[in-house]
Amino acid sequence: MMNGDEYLKTLRAMKTLVYIDGAAVPDFASHPAMKPAVNALKATYDLASNPELNPELHSLIVADSALADGKINRFLNIIKSQGDLMARMRLQRSMMRYTGGCFGGRCVAGAVINALWSVTYEVDKAEGGKTNYHERFTKYMAICQKNDLAVSGNITDAKGDRSLPPHRQADPDLYVRIVEQNREGIVVNGAKLQQSGAPIAHERLVVPTTALGPNDEAYAVAFAVPGDATGVIHVNDSACCNAKFMAMETEDIGNAAFGMHQSAHILFDNVFIPWDRVFLCGEWKASAALVHRFSDFQRFASSACRCGYIDLSIGAGIAMADYNGVFDKVHIQDKLISMSVDAETLYGLAAGSAALASRTESGVVLPETLSINAAKIYMNGAILRAGQSLADIGGGILVTRPSSRDLKIPKVGDLLAKYHKGREGVDVNDRLKMARLCESLSGLSTPTTILSVIAAGPPATQRLNFRLLTDFKRDRKAAERLAGVSSS
Amino acid sequence: MMNGDEYLKTLRAMKTLVYIDGAAVPDFASHPAMKPAVNALKATYDLASNPELNPELHSLIVADSALADGKINRFLNIIKSQGDLMARMRLQRSMMRYTGGCFGGRCVAGAVINALWSVTYEVDKAEGGKTNYHERFTKYMAICQKNDLAVSGNITDAKGDRSLPPHRQADPDLYVRIVEQNREGIVVNGAKLQQSGAPIAHERLVVPTTALGPNDEAYAVAFAVPGDATGVIHVNDSACCNAKFMAMETEDIGNAAFGMHQSAHILFDNVFIPWDRVFLCGEWKASAALVHRFSDFQRFASSACRCGYIDLSIGAGIAMADYNGVFDKVHIQDKLISMSVDAETLYGLAAGSAALASRTESGVVLPETLSINAAKIYMNGAILRAGQSLADIGGGILVTRPSSRDLKIPKVGDLLAKYHKGREGVDVNDRLKMARLCESLSGLSTPTTILSVIAAGPPATQRLNFRLLTDFKRDRKAAERLAGVSSS
Amino acid sequence: MMNGDEYLKTLRAMKTLVYIDGAAVPDFASHPAMKPAVNALKATYDLASNPELNPELHSLIVADSALADGKINRFLNIIKSQGDLMARMRLQRSMMRYTGGCFGGRCVAGAVINALWSVTYEVDKAEGGKTNYHERFTKYMAICQKNDLAVSGNITDAKGDRSLPPHRQADPDLYVRIVEQNREGIVVNGAKLQQSGAPIAHERLVVPTTALGPNDEAYAVAFAVPGDATGVIHVNDSACCNAKFMAMETEDIGNAAFGMHQSAHILFDNVFIPWDRVFLCGEWKASAALVHRFSDFQRFASSACRCGYIDLSIGAGIAMADYNGVFDKVHIQDKLISMSVDAETLYGLAAGSAALASRTESGVVLPETLSINAAKIYMNGAILRAGQSLADIGGGILVTRPSSRDLKIPKVGDLLAKYHKGREGVDVNDRLKMARLCESLSGLSTPTTILSVIAAGPPATQRLNFRLLTDFKRDRKAAERLAGVSSS
Amino acid sequence: MMNGDEYLKTLRAMKTLVYIDGAAVPDFASHPAMKPAVNALKATYDLASNPELNPELHSLIVADSALADGKINRFLNIIKSQGDLMARMRLQRSMMRYTGGCFGGRCVAGAVINALWSVTYEVDKAEGGKTNYHERFTKYMAICQKNDLAVSGNITDAKGDRSLPPHRQADPDLYVRIVEQNREGIVVNGAKLQQSGAPIAHERLVVPTTALGPNDEAYAVAFAVPGDATGVIHVNDSACCNAKFMAMETEDIGNAAFGMHQSAHILFDNVFIPWDRVFLCGEWKASAALVHRFSDFQRFASSACRCGYIDLSIGAGIAMADYNGVFDKVHIQDKLISMSVDAETLYGLAAGSAALASRTESGVVLPETLSINAAKIYMNGAILRAGQSLADIGGGILVTRPSSRDLKIPKVGDLLAKYHKGREGVDVNDRLKMARLCESLSGLSTPTTILSVIAAGPPATQRLNFRLLTDFKRDRKAAERLAGVSSS
Repeated sequence: MMNGDEYLKTLRAMKTLVYIDGAAVPDFASHPAMKPAVNALKATYDLASNPELNPELHSLIVADSALADGKINRFLNIIKSQGDLMARMRLQRSMMRYTGGCFGGRCVAGAVINALWSVTYEVDKAEGGKTNYHERFTKYMAICQKNDLAVSGNITDAKGDRSLPPHRQADPDLYVRIVEQNREGIVVNGAKLQQSGAPIAHERLVVPTTALGPNDEAYAVAFAVPGDATGVIHVNDSACCNAKFMAMETEDIGNAAFGMHQSAHILFDNVFIPWDRVFLCGEWKASAALVHRFSDFQRFASSACRCGYIDLSIGAGIAMADYNGVFDKVHIQDKLISMSVDAETLYGLAAGSAALASRTESGVVLPETLSINAAKIYMNGAILRAGQSLADIGGGILVTRPSSRDLKIPKVGDLLAKYHKGREGVDVNDRLKMARLCESLSGLSTPTTILSVIAAGPPATQRLNFRLLTDFKRDRKAAERLAGVSSS
Repeated sequence: MMNGDEYLKTLRAMKTLVYIDGAAVPDFASHPAMKPAVNALKATYDLASNPELNPELHSLIVADSALADGKINRFLNIIKSQGDLMARMRLQRSMMRYTGGCFGGRCVAGAVINALWSVTYEVDKAEGGKTNYHERFTKYMAICQKNDLAVSGNITDAKGDRSLPPHRQADPDLYVRIVEQNREGIVVNGAKLQQSGAPIAHERLVVPTTALGPNDEAYAVAFAVPGDATGVIHVNDSACCNAKFMAMETEDIGNAAFGMHQSAHILFDNVFIPWDRVFLCGEWKASAALVHRFSDFQRFASSACRCGYIDLSIGAGIAMADYNGVFDKVHIQDKLISMSVDAETLYGLAAGSAALASRTESGVVLPETLSINAAKIYMNGAILRAGQSLADIGGGILVTRPSSRDLKIPKVGDLLAKYHKGREGVDVNDRLKMARLCESLSGLSTPTTILSVIAAGPPATQRLNFRLLTDFKRDRKAAERLAGVSSS
Repeated sequence: MMNGDEYLKTLRAMKTLVYIDGAAVPDFASHPAMKPAVNALKATYDLASNPELNPELHSLIVADSALADGKINRFLNIIKSQGDLMARMRLQRSMMRYTGGCFGGRCVAGAVINALWSVTYEVDKAEGGKTNYHERFTKYMAICQKNDLAVSGNITDAKGDRSLPPHRQADPDLYVRIVEQNREGIVVNGAKLQQSGAPIAHERLVVPTTALGPNDEAYAVAFAVPGDATGVIHVNDSACCNAKFMAMETEDIGNAAFGMHQSAHILFDNVFIPWDRVFLCGEWKASAALVHRFSDFQRFASSACRCGYIDLSIGAGIAMADYNGVFDKVHIQDKLISMSVDAETLYGLAAGSAALASRTESGVVLPETLSINAAKIYMNGAILRAGQSLADIGGGILVTRPSSRDLKIPKVGDLLAKYHKGREGVDVNDRLKMARLCESLSGLSTPTTILSVIAAGPPATQRLNFRLLTDFKRDRKAAERLAGVSSS
Repeated sequence: MMNGDEYLKTLRAMKTLVYIDGAAVPDFASHPAMKPAVNALKATYDLASNPELNPELHSLIVADSALADGKINRFLNIIKSQGDLMARMRLQRSMMRYTGGCFGGRCVAGAVINALWSVTYEVDKAEGGKTNYHERFTKYMAICQKNDLAVSGNITDAKGDRSLPPHRQADPDLYVRIVEQNREGIVVNGAKLQQSGAPIAHERLVVPTTALGPNDEAYAVAFAVPGDATGVIHVNDSACCNAKFMAMETEDIGNAAFGMHQSAHILFDNVFIPWDRVFLCGEWKASAALVHRFSDFQRFASSACRCGYIDLSIGAGIAMADYNGVFDKVHIQDKLISMSVDAETLYGLAAGSAALASRTESGVVLPETLSINAAKIYMNGAILRAGQSLADIGGGILVTRPSSRDLKIPKVGDLLAKYHKGREGVDVNDRLKMARLCESLSGLSTPTTILSVIAAGPPATQRLNFRLLTDFKRDRKAAERLAGVSSS
C-alpha cells in the first residue's frame, strides 16, 4: 500500500489536464485551490500505510481483500456483509472527525464500485452469458486494489432541460454517451459536472446519472478511464467559499489543512475507452438498479461522515465555550446535547440500514433504502443546526476577529490581543484559532447567517426577556382558579 | 440632503484611521474589503436625494423632521408614533430587498439614537435638572439631521470574562470607560468590537453594552465622536466569507455590488470627548433601560430587514427554478410558499410590536418587547431555512459553476457553456449569474451545508423513494380492518 | 344587557329542537353534553353585566355601539378601527384564559357579522340600488345588539364530493340553497355541519362556505333565522372526548365547568326566511369576498384566543411543576419559556394583522391577510407543543391518577392519597386537581400521546443519557488538534 | 401454549383484587374500563396458538426457547443475539399495526426480564457465589415460559419529593421496600404506580425504579409475585379518555376492540415473597445497571411499536382521504410521505441500536444506548405529528360526526346520512367508521387540538392564500436586478 508521498508522486507523474480559474495548471496538486483537498486524500494513504499516525484510524482504514489477496484501503473494498457496511460507517465517521473536510471524494468511488459490482453480475446473468462485464470489472478492481489507486466516481450529467430524458435533449451530449463502437473499444462524449475530488484521483469510474428508458441506449454506458487519458479535461469549480484559500494567510483560515470541498467538471471530448474498461454498453434496463444502489451507498457514506462532522463541531463548541468562560451555562450544555442527539440519530440510522441490509446475488450487501433515505433527510437539518449552534455558542468573533497580520501591527496588534482575551488563563491566540475553526465548520457565512443568530443578542438573551417579562403569576392564578385549587 | 457622491466626498475628506489586514489604508472606501459596504451606505444617500432612482424607496427613506425643520433621511428620525415605527419597518424591508446586504449599519444608529433620546430625557428628569443631556443630545441630533451625517451606533465591548461585571475584570479597559474628567470634557479608553459599518460613517455614537451596577459608574458613558478624532483606531474584521471580494473577479461574486457584511473594531486610545458630546457620564442606573431599548429597536429593524432578504431569496429561487425548467414542480412551489410564510410571520411580528408599542415620556415610541423578541427568535430559523431552500432549489451549480475566466478558455469555455445550459430559451450566462446570487444569498458555504442538501440527490429524491417504497396497501388494509370497514 | 340567568331564561323560552345521541332533549341546556358550553356562553353575559365578577374582563367585553346607541357586548360589535380589532384581540385572549374552553362560538358570529356588514354594503353599491341588503342587515344587527342576543355563525356545508362545485353535486342539497322565492321571503334547504355552540345561541346567521361560480346562484344565500324556527333541527356531535362529561364525576374532569368544545349539525328542512332576514340572494360574485373576510376574522379571533389557552397551560405547568417539587429545574423553565414565546408570537401576529389592517368602504376594518394566515399556521404547532409540554412537565399522573371515588374506598383511599403526595406542604388533592386540569388542557389522550412522551422516562431522561455518554473529550481533542491549539 | 380463551380462563381463576372507580370488581376482565386491554393481551395468545389467524404475526410471535425446550411466546424470550432483538422489533411493529393499541404491557415484562437476567448473573458473580439469584430467576422464567404466563413488569414508585432519594423521603414507603426478612422470605411494602396492563397479567415482576445509593439498601429489591397474592391491591386509573368506553356505544368508539391504554396502581400492603421469588435483596449497586437496561429495552420496544402505530395512521389517512375524494391532492400525499419518513426513521433507529448492540456476560444482548435514546426523543414528536396529520387529512368529522343512535332517529337519521356522504361510491357508514378510527388513533381530543388544526380552514387553505397573495413578481424582479440579469 502506498503512503501519502507515493500517492503524490504517482499523481504528479500523470499528465492530467486541469484548468483552474481560466488557466491550465500543470502542478495543480500544489495550487491553493486544490491543495487542502489533496492533503485530505493524501491522509487516507498515510493513515493506511502508517499504523502509528493514528492507530484507531489505521485499523479502520485497512481491510482484507480476497480479490487482492491481501490488505487494501477500505475505500476500495467490496462490501459483502453487514460487518463490511458497519466498518465503512465507522471509518467514515472517524475519518471526518480527523479531517473536518471531504477526503477527496473516496466515498463516491465506494458507492459506484459496489453498485457496479452487483449490477454487472446481474446484467451478465440476464444476458445469458453474452456479456462478461462482471469479469472485466473484477479484473479492473483487482488492479485498483493491488496498485492502491484512488478512484473517483463520476456521476452527474449536465442534464439540460430537467423535464426531458437524455435522447430528447436539444443537444445529445447533455448526458455522457457512446458516439462510436469499434473492435478496440468505444468513444464517449459528454460531461460529468461537479465531481468531488475528481482531478486528484488516479482513475475515473463513470456511470449514468439517472434511470434510462429504451431510447436512451447510447447513454447506458459505464466505464473506467485514467485521469490523464486523451480528451479528458478537468475544470475546477469556483465556489466563493474557497476564495479564502487564495486570498488569506493560512493561519487565518480555519482548518486550512483539510477544510476545503473541492470539485471539478470533467469534459469527455471524444474519449476512447478500450473494451476491458467498459462495464455497461447499451443495457439501459440495468441503469435503474445501478442508480438506486450507488445513491443509497452514497447516502450511507455521507450520513456516517456527517456524524464525524458533528462530533468535531461539538468539540469546537466545547472549546469555544470554555475559552469564553461559559462552558457550564445550561443553554450551552443544551446545545451540545442536541448536537449529540443529532449525531447519534444519524449514526443509528446508518447502522439501522446495515442491520436491515439485503444481499444481492453477487454477494454485495445493500443498505436498506428507507432508513438510509431517512438518514439523508435528517442530515440536511442536522448539519445546519450544528452550524447554527456553533455560531450561537461562539458569537460574532467567528467572523469578526482580527487577522494574523492585524495582530502584528505595532501597538494596535497588542490592543487587539488585549481586547480579544476570553476567560483568564486562556491564550488569546487559542481563542482566535478556535474561532476560525468554528467559522469554517459552521458552513455559514456572515451577512445573513452567523450575524442573524448573534446580532441584537443571541437567542438566549431573547429567551431571558421572556423569562423576566412573562406574567407567570397571572397565568398560574388563572390555572389554580380553574382547577379549583383556589377560588379567585 | 446629500447625494451618494457627496457622501463619498465628505467621507474621503476625513482622516479616519482604518487598518485592513495589517496595514493602514488611507483610501479605505475604495478597498475591496470595504467597497460593497460603502456602496450600500451610499445607496441610502442616492435614494433619498434622487426620487427617480426608485420612487417607492425614495418615498420611504425621506421623512419630515421638526428638529431639522425639513426633510431628513429616515435613518436619523426620532420615532414618535406607531406610524413612524411602521415607516421604518417598511423602509428596512424594501431597502434590503434592494441591496441584498447590510446598508452600512444605519439601523444600529437608529436604535441607539431613539434609545438615547428617551433615556437622556428621563435621566435629566430623575436628576432634577442637574444634568442637561437631553438638550445636548437634541442639539447633536439637529446637527446630524441638518448635515445629513451617517452615524454608526457603537455598542459591543470586549467583555473579557463574561461571568464578571465591568469593574471586576482583570483589565479595566475591557469595557469602554471614563479615565478622566475635566472642564472641557472627558477622556475615554477601551474598545467597541465588531461594529457593522463603523469606519464608513461620519460619526460614532457610543453607548454601554450591558446593564451596569453601582460600582460600574466609570462605565456608564454615552458620547458622540467623529470617526477621525484623535485616538480613534479602526481595524477591519477578517471574515473568510469576504475573501472572495479580494480574490475573485467581480462578475464571479454574487451581488458583488452590495453583498458584503463589513464590520470593524474601534479602539479608543485615550480619546477626548468635549462635554457637548457627552450624553451619560456616571448615571449607571440609566443603562438598563438604554440597553433594553436599543436592543429592541435593533431587533425591530433586523426583523423587518430580514423580510426583504427572504423576499429577495424567494425571487432568486423563482428565477433559478425557472432557468432549470422546474418552476412548476410542486415541491418547488411548496418551498417558495414556506419562505413567504416565514417572511410574513417576521413582518407581522414587527408590525405587531408596533401595534402594541408604548410611548415614553420623551415622546419616543418603543416596540413591544415580547413580540419583537419573538420575532428575533423566529428570524434565526427563518434565515437558515431560506438559505437551505435556495440550495435545494438551485442545486450544486451554486458553488460548482465555472468562473468567468473559465468561460473564456478557448474551446473549453464553449464546452462549459454547452454543458451549463438550463431549459431552452434561457441564456446560460443568466443561469450562472443567478446561481452566483443564490450562493451569496444562501449565506451557506459549500463543504457541509449546500452540498449536504444536494449530494446524493436533493431531499425531493429521498421523499420520492418513500412514495415509491412505503407499503401503503398494507397500511390501508390494517386500518380498514380495525375500523370495521373490511373484515380481513 | 342581560345577565347570565336572563340568557338562560331566554334560551329556555325558545322551542329549539335539539337531538343528543339519538333523542330530542327539550332541556338541552342542562344536558351534560351541553352544559359546560352553556356555562361558558353564560359567562360572557355575566361578565358583561357584572363589573365586579372580573373587572378586567368586564371592561374588555363591554363596547360602545352607535348602532345600539349604548353599551353592547363586544362580540356583537362592528369593527371599524385598528383599536376595535385590538380590543377584540385582548378580549379573546383574556376570555380564554378565564374559561379554558370555547365560549359558545361567539367569535364565529363576530367574523360573519363583520364580513356581512362590509359585503352587503358593497353588493348594494354594485347593484346600483336594486338591493337593500345593508339596510336590512343594519336593522337586524340593531335588534341583536339592543336585545343582547347570542348569535351563531353558520358556515360549513356538507360539501359531498370536495372536487365538485355546489351545482354539480349528485344531491343538490349538499350545500344550503334557495328552493323557493316568494313575496314574503325565501325557502332554504340543506345543512350546516359542526357549528360550535349553535344550539345554545338565540340566532343563526347563515352564509355560504365557499366562493361560488355563476351556476351556483341558488347557493348564494345569506340569512338570519331564530334557533327555534320551523324546520330547523339540531343534532349534537358525538366527540369521544366529551364522553367524560356523561360518564365521570364532575370532580374527576379537569375544567368540568367550561372545558368542553360542543358543536352541532343544523339541518334546514325547507325553512322559510322572511325578506327582512335575507342578506344575499343569488349574488354569487359577492361570495368570494365574504368567505375571505369571515375566514380572516375567524383566524384573527382563534389566534388571539389560543394565546389565552397557552397562558393557562403555562400556569397549569407552573403549578404542577411546583407541586412535584421540580419548578426550579432548568428543563422545566425552558419549556415554560418556550410556551411563552409561542403565546407571544401568536399574539404579536394578531396585533400585526391589526396594524396592517385595511378599511372597506363600509367602514369595517379587515385584519391583514398574510400575517393572520401566518398566525393560523403557527397556531397549529403551538397548541400541540403546549399540550406536549404539559404532559412532559406533569407526567403520567395526568391520566393515571385515581378517581374521587377511589379516594373514598376504606383504607385503599388512604393508601392512594399517601402514594400520590408530591412535595412536602402540597395538599395531595390540589396535586390531583391540577393533574386533571392539565389532562384537559393538554388536548391529548393517553394511548399514544401523553404516554409516548412519558413512558420509559420523559425526554429529559434521554437527554441526560446523551450528557453522560457522549464522548465529549474525544470531540474536543479532535477540534483542538484541527484548530492547531494542540498537536495531538 | 395457551390460546386466548385459556388465558381468560386462567385469569378468571385467580382472585386478583381490582378496584375500578371506587369499587372492587371481581370480574374485572369484562368491565368496560378493562376489556379492550384484555382483548389486546388475549390477541397475543390467539396469534401464538393459531397460525391461521394471521400467519405473519404467528411466525413473529412464536420463538424457540432452550430454557423451555420448545416454542414460547416471544414476549417471554431471553434476547441473546442481534437477531433476537430484531425479531422483537418486527413483532412490536406488526403487533401494533394489528391492534392499534397497547397489548397489555407485554413489552414491559420483556424489558424487565432481560435486564434481570443479565443483572442477576452479574450480581452472583460479583458476590462470589454467596447469592444464587440467577439460578432462581432461571427457574422462575422456565416456569413462566412453560406455563405461558403473562408477566407484568412493575417499575414506577410513588417517588414523593423528586429531589430526595428513597431513604430521605418523609414517608419510607414512597419507594417499595423490604420491611422484613426471615427464613421463608421477605415482606415488602410500598406501591408501584401506573403500570400498563398490570391487573390482567398472571404475574408481577417488580424492580426498583431508580439507581440507588448505599443508604437505600432496603429499596434494592426485585421479586416476582402472582397477581392474587395476599396484600396485593390494584386500583385502575381514571383517564378521561377512557370514559368513552363507559358512556358510548361500541360502534361509536374508534377501535373499540383494542384501542384503550389501561394502567393501574399496585399497592403492596406488607406482601410476603418466598425466597425462590426474590431476585435482588439489598444489592443496591446493581440497581444502576438494572434501571439503565430495562429503560433501554423499553425504549427499544416502544420505538418499534410506534412504527406500527404510524403505519396504521398512514392507512387510516389514506382511507379517509380517499373517502373524501382528495387522495390524489399533493398536500395529502406529502403528509403521508412525511408520516412514512417518521415511521422509518424510528424503525431505522431501533434497527441501528440492534446493529450496535453489546453482549453482557450472561449472554443477554443490549440495544445500544445512544441510538435507542435518540429514537425515543424522535418518537415524541413523530407521534404528535402523525395525530395532527390525521386531523388535518380527515377534518372536523373526526369529532363531530353523528352517533350511531343519531343515525337511527326517524327522518333525521336519513338526513344525517345524506349530509355525511363523501365521494360517490363510498358508503357513508364506512366514512363514519374511519372517522372514528382516525379520532382514536390521533390521540387528540377536540377543544384545542383537532379543531385548532381544522377551524377557519385547514393549513392547506392558509398556504393557498400565500400562494395567491405573495408578490412573487416583485421578488423575482428584485433578484434579477441584483443578479445582473435585468437592469431594472
